[in-house]
Amino acid sequence: MNDLVLVNADHLKDFCEAVFTRAGADIETATDATRAMMHASIHAVESHGVRLLPHYITAIRGGRVNGQPKMEFTRVKAGSGLLDGDHGHGAHVAYVATDHAIEMARDAGIAAVGIRNSSHFGPAGAFTLHAAQQGFIALATCNSDSFVRLHDGATRFHGTNPISVAAPSGGDDPWLLDMATSAVPYNRVQLYKSLGQELPELVASDADGLNTHDPAAAEMLVPLGGEFGFKGAGLGGVAEILSAALTGMRFSPEIAPMPGPDFSTQREMGAFILVIDPDGFVGRALFEGGMRRYLEQLRQSPARDGMRVMAPGDREWVRAKERRTHGMPLDPVTLTEFEDLAQDFGVELPF
Amino acid sequence: MNDLVLVNADHLKDFCEAVFTRAGADIETATDATRAMMHASIHAVESHGVRLLPHYITAIRGGRVNGQPKMEFTRVKAGSGLLDGDHGHGAHVAYVATDHAIEMARDAGIAAVGIRNSSHFGPAGAFTLHAAQQGFIALATCNSDSFVRLHDGATRFHGTNPISVAAPSGGDDPWLLDMATSAVPYNRVQLYKSLGQELPELVASDADGLNTHDPAAAEMLVPLGGEFGFKGAGLGGVAEILSAALTGMRFSPEIAPMPGPDFSTQREMGAFILVIDPDGFVGRALFEGGMRRYLEQLRQSPARDGMRVMAPGDREWVRAKERRTHGMPLDPVTLTEFEDLAQDFGVELPF
Repeated sequence: MNDLVLVNADHLKDFCEAVFTRAGADIETATDATRAMMHASIHAVESHGVRLLPHYITAIRGGRVNGQPKMEFTRVKAGSGLLDGDHGHGAHVAYVATDHAIEMARDAGIAAVGIRNSSHFGPAGAFTLHAAQQGFIALATCNSDSFVRLHDGATRFHGTNPISVAAPSGGDDPWLLDMATSAVPYNRVQLYKSLGQELPELVASDADGLNTHDPAAAEMLVPLGGEFGFKGAGLGGVAEILSAALTGMRFSPEIAPMPGPDFSTQREMGAFILVIDPDGFVGRALFEGGMRRYLEQLRQSPARDGMRVMAPGDREWVRAKERRTHGMPLDPVTLTEFEDLAQDFGVELPF
Repeated sequence: MNDLVLVNADHLKDFCEAVFTRAGADIETATDATRAMMHASIHAVESHGVRLLPHYITAIRGGRVNGQPKMEFTRVKAGSGLLDGDHGHGAHVAYVATDHAIEMARDAGIAAVGIRNSSHFGPAGAFTLHAAQQGFIALATCNSDSFVRLHDGATRFHGTNPISVAAPSGGDDPWLLDMATSAVPYNRVQLYKSLGQELPELVASDADGLNTHDPAAAEMLVPLGGEFGFKGAGLGGVAEILSAALTGMRFSPEIAPMPGPDFSTQREMGAFILVIDPDGFVGRALFEGGMRRYLEQLRQSPARDGMRVMAPGDREWVRAKERRTHGMPLDPVTLTEFEDLAQDFGVELPF
């Protein structure tokens, strides 16, 4: 932990936005891509946080990601539409899709936007939270390059295919679930490796699909559920069906690997955003009253010795408060990469 | 296995329908309730199969379930509505809700129906399959009386809160996921108990919320995900939000226990059915072509030694074929209960 530098959140945000614009991205791309990374970093989801900035800049410079997309939205029916992202930054495309879905949901009660021709969208929870903060329930999902074996499978097949659901809580912070459909994210495996520790049961498999405790032998992730991994694999399939089949985009095994080496070819990724307006059902007042009652019951329910029961998101709001106050930790690799970016683009470092 | 009697599927169906009508249910209730039970039995999901017939009849006789409901559907917006089930049989209410959702989805591209004043709906997959067989993607969920601890919880809180998603496969049988958000269903725990076997890791907890291998000490189920049970608990929460908060119905801890002893009070349960029309997105032809490509990749992908990779539903279609050919197995307890029902209502036994 001594190697981590704490950086002021506002300075970090300004730095990311400046680097994006100097790299040729338009203001909207710079703002949305930074907003999604900051969502992850401030909630301590480091895998999708600001450490991705150098990766995204490489993708924009190489042509994989279009920094100045001309997106096109088609409202197909009253509650459904397709957004062609013109290969823009996935977070920018996803925020725009969420806004379209919200607008249609106000009218139709429920609405969804299928995203076409997009790229890595980062933390799914950024977009559902955006909708929940405006009073809507939302679900967001995407697929990604193969990394997780199927139940009884022996090769990488699905991506970590996240599913996020958020809902207004009737109080301050929304209810927010954002989960990979693998047991753990790959960066967790890397963490065990760097610490020289054994992996827990049922999180990673070797090249034959056999589960391993050795992080160095980990060739693929295991679907959520361990012995009942058909559930995690099935949820990963839901992400494929909504993000790729419904949009005509690539399935996980067809998506070019996120880390390259090819950074010039567009990845043609899909994604899916669903928004529900409580006024299309029992009405916002009753819905929010119900959410308050539910969360009160949940937070007051007995916990195991020494533990505390939390609602999805509760841990994240605490981390966000800490990080807004004390700063965001940056690891040494990211610090060095940020120094290079600052030099390349003539942008002042945030630390 | 020697104690199991094999019964012809058509005879079993006729028997169930006859008992329902003799017990005072209308034809629609008898048909839909039987159809849902037969869906479970034929796909070897015994927990929601015909063994529930005596339970349902007790509920109708006691007044908990209204065998002749006057349902009322309100289309609130273009793609959203509420169906008041008038305390009818949950499967009947859910089939009717699915049909309303399909009709709205044809128009709006996506639609959802929140179910109010219903009862135990049985297998969520029965309703999503019904929609998928007509060319639609569907999601169904409900909550149920408390049985699963929260992550770090020490009491029963959520029900087993199933989530089912089905989609047309572009071929014969749809893609069908139907999963409890607990690691296992409770009847699995009972099975280990009756066999005198130890429970697997992370499926059940004792009265303090501590995980146990002893089926006799199992007081509650563990949420899906084991060490990462916050994911299963979060998915259970999705079921609560959509089924109860969005419909103004009871949360799991507020729902009267399924096994009674009170069979006269109506349970006021909610549920939620979502339907997506591929023609609201990329179009049915492209969608189904994509599904075929995805499923071909999936079924051809390498499996672990001695295993086979299957898509969600594949195992069930095999079981259904076997059971249609060779008959449906009935356990001794159910056989005895059926004999009592046959005598009570003057209905011929199916075996």
